[in-house]
Amino acid sequence: MIQVGVNGYGTIGKRVADAVAAQPDMVLRGVAKRSPNHEAESAVKREYDLYAADPDRTDEFEAVGLPPAGTLSDLLADVDVVVDCCPAGVGAQNRDIYDAHDVRVVFQGGEDATVADASFTARTAFETARDADAVRVVSCNSTGLARLLAPVAESFGVETARVTLIRRGGDPAQTDRGPINDIVPDPVGLPSHHGPDVNTVLPGVDVDTAALKAPVTAMHTHSVNVTLETTPTADEVRRLLADESRLFLIPEGAGIDGAGALKEYAMDLGRPRGDLWENCLWGESVHVSGRDLYLFQNVHQEADVVPENVDAIRAMATDTAAAESMATTDQALGVGL
Amino acid sequence: MIQVGVNGYGTIGKRVADAVAAQPDMVLRGVAKRSPNHEAESAVKREYDLYAADPDRTDEFEAVGLPPAGTLSDLLADVDVVVDCCPAGVGAQNRDIYDAHDVRVVFQGGEDATVADASFTARTAFETARDADAVRVVSCNSTGLARLLAPVAESFGVETARVTLIRRGGDPAQTDRGPINDIVPDPVGLPSHHGPDVNTVLPGVDVDTAALKAPVTAMHTHSVNVTLETTPTADEVRRLLADESRLFLIPEGAGIDGAGALKEYAMDLGRPRGDLWENCLWGESVHVSGRDLYLFQNVHQEADVVPENVDAIRAMATDTAAAESMATTDQALGVGL
Amino acid sequence: MIQVGVNGYGTIGKRVADAVAAQPDMVLRGVAKRSPNHEAESAVKREYDLYAADPDRTDEFEAVGLPPAGTLSDLLADVDVVVDCCPAGVGAQNRDIYDAHDVRVVFQGGEDATVADASFTARTAFETARDADAVRVVSCNSTGLARLLAPVAESFGVETARVTLIRRGGDPAQTDRGPINDIVPDPVGLPSHHGPDVNTVLPGVDVDTAALKAPVTAMHTHSVNVTLETTPTADEVRRLLADESRLFLIPEGAGIDGAGALKEYAMDLGRPRGDLWENCLWGESVHVSGRDLYLFQNVHQEADVVPENVDAIRAMATDTAAAESMATTDQALGVGL
Amino acid sequence: MIQVGVNGYGTIGKRVADAVAAQPDMVLRGVAKRSPNHEAESAVKREYDLYAADPDRTDEFEAVGLPPAGTLSDLLADVDVVVDCCPAGVGAQNRDIYDAHDVRVVFQGGEDATVADASFTARTAFETARDADAVRVVSCNSTGLARLLAPVAESFGVETARVTLIRRGGDPAQTDRGPINDIVPDPVGLPSHHGPDVNTVLPGVDVDTAALKAPVTAMHTHSVNVTLETTPTADEVRRLLADESRLFLIPEGAGIDGAGALKEYAMDLGRPRGDLWENCLWGESVHVSGRDLYLFQNVHQEADVVPENVDAIRAMATDTAAAESMATTDQALGVGL
Ligand SMILES: NC(=O)c1ccc[n+]([C@@H]2O[C@H](COP(=O)([O-])OP(=O)(O)OC[C@H]3O[C@@H](n4cnc5c(N)ncnc54)[C@H](O)[C@@H]3O)[C@@H](O)[C@H]2O)c1
Ligand SMILES: NC(=O)c1ccc[n+]([C@@H]2O[C@H](COP(=O)([O-])OP(=O)(O)OC[C@H]3O[C@@H](n4cnc5c(N)ncnc54)[C@H](O)[C@@H]3O)[C@@H](O)[C@H]2O)c1
Ligand SMILES: NC(=O)c1ccc[n+]([C@@H]2O[C@H](COP(=O)([O-])OP(=O)(O)OC[C@H]3O[C@@H](n4cnc5c(N)ncnc54)[C@H](O)[C@@H]3O)[C@@H](O)[C@H]2O)c1
Ligand SMILES: NC(=O)c1ccc[n+]([C@@H]2O[C@H](COP(=O)([O-])OP(=O)(O)OC[C@H]3O[C@@H](n4cnc5c(N)ncnc54)[C@H](O)[C@@H]3O)[C@@H](O)[C@H]2O)c1
Repeated sequence: MIQVGVNGYGTIGKRVADAVAAQPDMVLRGVAKRSPNHEAESAVKREYDLYAADPDRTDEFEAVGLPPAGTLSDLLADVDVVVDCCPAGVGAQNRDIYDAHDVRVVFQGGEDATVADASFTARTAFETARDADAVRVVSCNSTGLARLLAPVAESFGVETARVTLIRRGGDPAQTDRGPINDIVPDPVGLPSHHGPDVNTVLPGVDVDTAALKAPVTAMHTHSVNVTLETTPTADEVRRLLADESRLFLIPEGAGIDGAGALKEYAMDLGRPRGDLWENCLWGESVHVSGRDLYLFQNVHQEADVVPENVDAIRAMATDTAAAESMATTDQALGVGL
Repeated sequence: MIQVGVNGYGTIGKRVADAVAAQPDMVLRGVAKRSPNHEAESAVKREYDLYAADPDRTDEFEAVGLPPAGTLSDLLADVDVVVDCCPAGVGAQNRDIYDAHDVRVVFQGGEDATVADASFTARTAFETARDADAVRVVSCNSTGLARLLAPVAESFGVETARVTLIRRGGDPAQTDRGPINDIVPDPVGLPSHHGPDVNTVLPGVDVDTAALKAPVTAMHTHSVNVTLETTPTADEVRRLLADESRLFLIPEGAGIDGAGALKEYAMDLGRPRGDLWENCLWGESVHVSGRDLYLFQNVHQEADVVPENVDAIRAMATDTAAAESMATTDQALGVGL
Repeated sequence: MIQVGVNGYGTIGKRVADAVAAQPDMVLRGVAKRSPNHEAESAVKREYDLYAADPDRTDEFEAVGLPPAGTLSDLLADVDVVVDCCPAGVGAQNRDIYDAHDVRVVFQGGEDATVADASFTARTAFETARDADAVRVVSCNSTGLARLLAPVAESFGVETARVTLIRRGGDPAQTDRGPINDIVPDPVGLPSHHGPDVNTVLPGVDVDTAALKAPVTAMHTHSVNVTLETTPTADEVRRLLADESRLFLIPEGAGIDGAGALKEYAMDLGRPRGDLWENCLWGESVHVSGRDLYLFQNVHQEADVVPENVDAIRAMATDTAAAESMATTDQALGVGL
Repeated sequence: MIQVGVNGYGTIGKRVADAVAAQPDMVLRGVAKRSPNHEAESAVKREYDLYAADPDRTDEFEAVGLPPAGTLSDLLADVDVVVDCCPAGVGAQNRDIYDAHDVRVVFQGGEDATVADASFTARTAFETARDADAVRVVSCNSTGLARLLAPVAESFGVETARVTLIRRGGDPAQTDRGPINDIVPDPVGLPSHHGPDVNTVLPGVDVDTAALKAPVTAMHTHSVNVTLETTPTADEVRRLLADESRLFLIPEGAGIDGAGALKEYAMDLGRPRGDLWENCLWGESVHVSGRDLYLFQNVHQEADVVPENVDAIRAMATDTAAAESMATTDQALGVGL
């Protein structure tokens, strides 16, 4: 059994913790957190051992009736792999303490690529994690793009992909994020950094991205164009994509018209937190004209990287093959719609 | 066992169906729907028997691989009570078919009060349903207000309650509802009809309401003032409210600052669809100055009426006492935070 | 002097009326409206003769102290050209009455192309209006695209243009339009009808569009890619576009980051209603990589078609050359930032 | 002629500058700004002398072709009164430099009341400014409440006013302000600080406020209850309020249903920036039941304090009577709908 800890128990951390706890070959030894807020309370209700990430704030946890099982160091002493889910940039600051405890670490996409030995997405870069002490799961948007472009590149060849990313302004509980009534080019300079980030896990595929920030909280939306090297039919593309375990082809006629309905669908199926671990592609939008493929997809920013984190752990800590790891992960979580 | 059917399987209907299915003394015989969209698919995935509400559209269900178990009439033939969860106003049109099948019926708050023999909230009007053939569970806002005002009136006396209702513009998946960047007095005439609606289940309590529509989807927010007949302390009020099973006092310092965090909290606790069946009151907001009580509460429009529907069924179909019914409902659902 | 009337005095109609009134060679004979709301009142305050579009509702105007100067027929009797600014689809219904009065008519982009003899944008299709009895100014999005793509095609050649249109959900005062918290592919089928609409005024340019609806009210945002036939530098593209009178290159470093700041800028410059008649392109976003041009532009949906309507009138009613008409229009309005 | 300078040329500063420039008895000597952004450019286009607020950043202004007329000190040397419109809290830091130049100063509502000798609203506290070296115009919300409550208190007596303030989350161009999809009690503790702030200009009127932040940018909305000391009819209240020059009673039937339509109305009337200097009260909402008055009003946060700033200058620098000053201000600006 792989002993795993999670440091940073927020949007991503709590989902990774649940996913690890659900794996047949992993044990969640505990989660570390800085502040004893409602998320700390719910960790305890889930019977996760709660550790104080900041040893100086242990008493704050005690004050609200959530006495920690120890500090981050205590947790690190017990694990093979730690998953760092701290806010963007904090992971890099944590690198020293992980090295000091000689644990392997999985970072998140808010960190610079240089934080780790390799960047990771299970579909495209599983093997890069083999000998790594630290890997970085790429961001939600990059994960979503790599999953889509990899099979397209393999089957039809990609001359150039051009993607407009309409990013959610903030997560649902982030009340200090905007915009309120605006679409903001962000960054305004083109192409955006997202394309190069995709290339850290999918090298050799030419992808230009343009990114904007929108007043929505539920999902990112991607408007995708790919100039292919061949001329498949739209149906061939649909069939290819439908075969990918972490892609969900939204059926026509089901009345799913946006992120709200997608989340509703996930919740109706009993998904925890309404999580959509899969890219959600509108089947109806898939169109090929000459060598130009067009489609819309949505990415649930809070969820799509979660199975990737699980696979990253397995890639680093075992010699399980990629396909087997992904199958195990998906089976344990219920990935696949 | 009470045999129950649900007609109209949308936002409210699917939740009522789940809640009925979870009761120890009820059997969900099936759900009826007009259109075979993704919600129909998820009903089938939940192994609910799916009936075609409109007999002329049976073939549409077959066309998408969801052959119905029969039509609405077939369902009505098998049940003691039907819960009508059709869009506002459609319930009244359905009254004839329910009468023809001689089934008791629970309507929702989108119907006029005249649709039924009595209006219903378990906390305040359980007994009114006893001899009724038809009851109407009042709207999400009225339910939330009755639950709050009833104990306050009983313990401290209510001279006048004045409530500003900042209503969500639409449910999360309703993409055709606005406003986008506006707060709309709705109705602009004061006081709004919500106060009289509260009085259908809580007569004798003077309550003036002012309602507006806001560009949010997750919850309604109530800004509440009550001029009391006595002068309790804020702590006495908090203690009283904390004792009510369907009121949740949001703890201070937990980092819950709005509807987004409330839903996050519910989802972290594993609530299906992140449902908050309880009124959510900010403990920190409770303030008494002279005889004036002030507080903020949030109401999850999609969820708070759900336990009420269950109790309405039991009130009509059994002679279970109110307290026992509410306890059974709450226990089966997991109400109480 | 060209005698002009405006039928339909809403978002577009009131702007067209002001623009006509400002021209040295046109007389605004009056505006017709159906309902005597605040826009009718403001027409009167601007001293425009107000006509009742619906003869049966004349008394409603009188009731609120806005007695009309006559009915639509009276207005039509006095004009050379009527500009129909009624809601989408209503224009087609009005065609008969215009024909009966033998007046030339300018329709708006909400009508089908078949409503008129020709579609119109001054930059690309001025001459098509010469012998026409009726022209249709294309929609705000199509106008914005034609203005951008025409000079690019002329100077650098367009192999294919691919544009993602992130459309505003509703105009600022439309409180019944959504979405509230969603980005909706609309239409979900690709490519959208906007490309063919551009081709009605700019034939021969290959343009694929993808359209979505967003919870914003101020402007549309376009994420543009053009595969060129040549390889200009970004600066050459910027210089070309800066030379176009109805394109505004947002300067770098000015602190303009979205539609809110753009409108603020327009209002600070004293523009009526903060109108931006020009396409607004982020200079900083212009990027060329190989033959691929990328840029972001914003289009003020309420305003960009206004100068086009003026030119359409002149094209139909005079033999003024395109360049002269556009210069006159721009001078009278103050177009050009 | 009163020599006036404005320090801080943003949302409030640019409006105050325009308002000062429009007065018959004032000269706008210049405006000072820190950064040479698009607002600086528009100041120059308006032919206002532009000064560098930060002497170390003069060259930044030169770099973009906006050479400043001098530094803040130069401006202060020339004026009788400076209006500080810097971001909240910065005004207090500026106090020393104003004192050093021995100029009178008008601060804004983002500062603590202690920044100045007196707080100011023309309707209720004109005389407090007479001998003051520094006054603070209260915030947009407090200004709006004082204007409403003063006449009500004078004519009908106020036992207690209870107001729910649904505040705009950010101004239209502020893309970093939220919330996106939430209504946030802010502050969650009740009553909010707005009531005491109103009392700085309207002492002796009991007013309890509850404040929330909403995802809108155009206006604040107030849901108002006043328990009166007398029992006027709604019409008497309407007549009283209609007589106040800085209150606008939105007429029934005009089709104005929210902030979007209000701004549209202002823009249609040619108001600069669509500014609504007046409180906007829905006439239809005014209701009296017993001694309880209810109504809705909207406040344009960017504009309502502007005439107050002008009057504050006149109150400090002249012995003009309040009524005369307000009439002059209103006449020069065009206040009164
Ligand atoms: N939210 C998303 O949509 C998303 C998607 C993909 C990747 N990511 C990346 O995941 C990472 C985490 O983001 P998130 O959205 O979960 O953030 P979050 O703010 O929701 O959670 C961060 C958690 O870390 C805790 N924390 C803060 N400082 C800490 C420290 N020094 N030690 C331990 N814990 C600390 C916080 O209390 C919080 O619980 C970031 O790199 C982010 O870029 C986020
Ligand atoms: N959504 C809320 O927030 C909320 C809260 C409290 C009460 N209510 C009330 O609950 C009722 C249902 O509202 P909802 O939000 O669930 O609506 P909904 O639109 O989400 O669901 C209605 C369902 O009824 C189906 N339907 C439509 N016509 C039908 C017919 N003739 N026969 C059978 N089924 C039909 C629709 O297909 C849909 O599945 C209304 O009275 C509403 O006012 C809604
Ligand atoms: N609003 C935009 O962003 C926009 C942009 C470009 C083009 N358009 C097109 O312009 C046209 C007008 O749109 P709008 O946004 O100004 O609409 P609007 O709803 O703002 O205004 C329409 C006006 O027409 C009046 N009206 C309705 N029926 C009428 C009738 N039978 N006779 C006379 N008047 C009638 C209404 O009272 C209203 O004043 C549509 O074709 C639309 O597609 C709109
Ligand atoms: N925006 C509103 O809705 C509103 C309403 C009423 C009162 N107020 C108050 O008015 C004041 C100004 O707010 P605003 O919204 O206009 O802010 P803003 O951010 O729009 O403008 C502030 C301006 O001050 C400049 N500035 C920053 N630091 C400066 C310095 N040290 N010296 C000189 N200039 C400096 C900025 O460049 C900017 O031009 C605040 O006290 C605020 O609370 C704002």
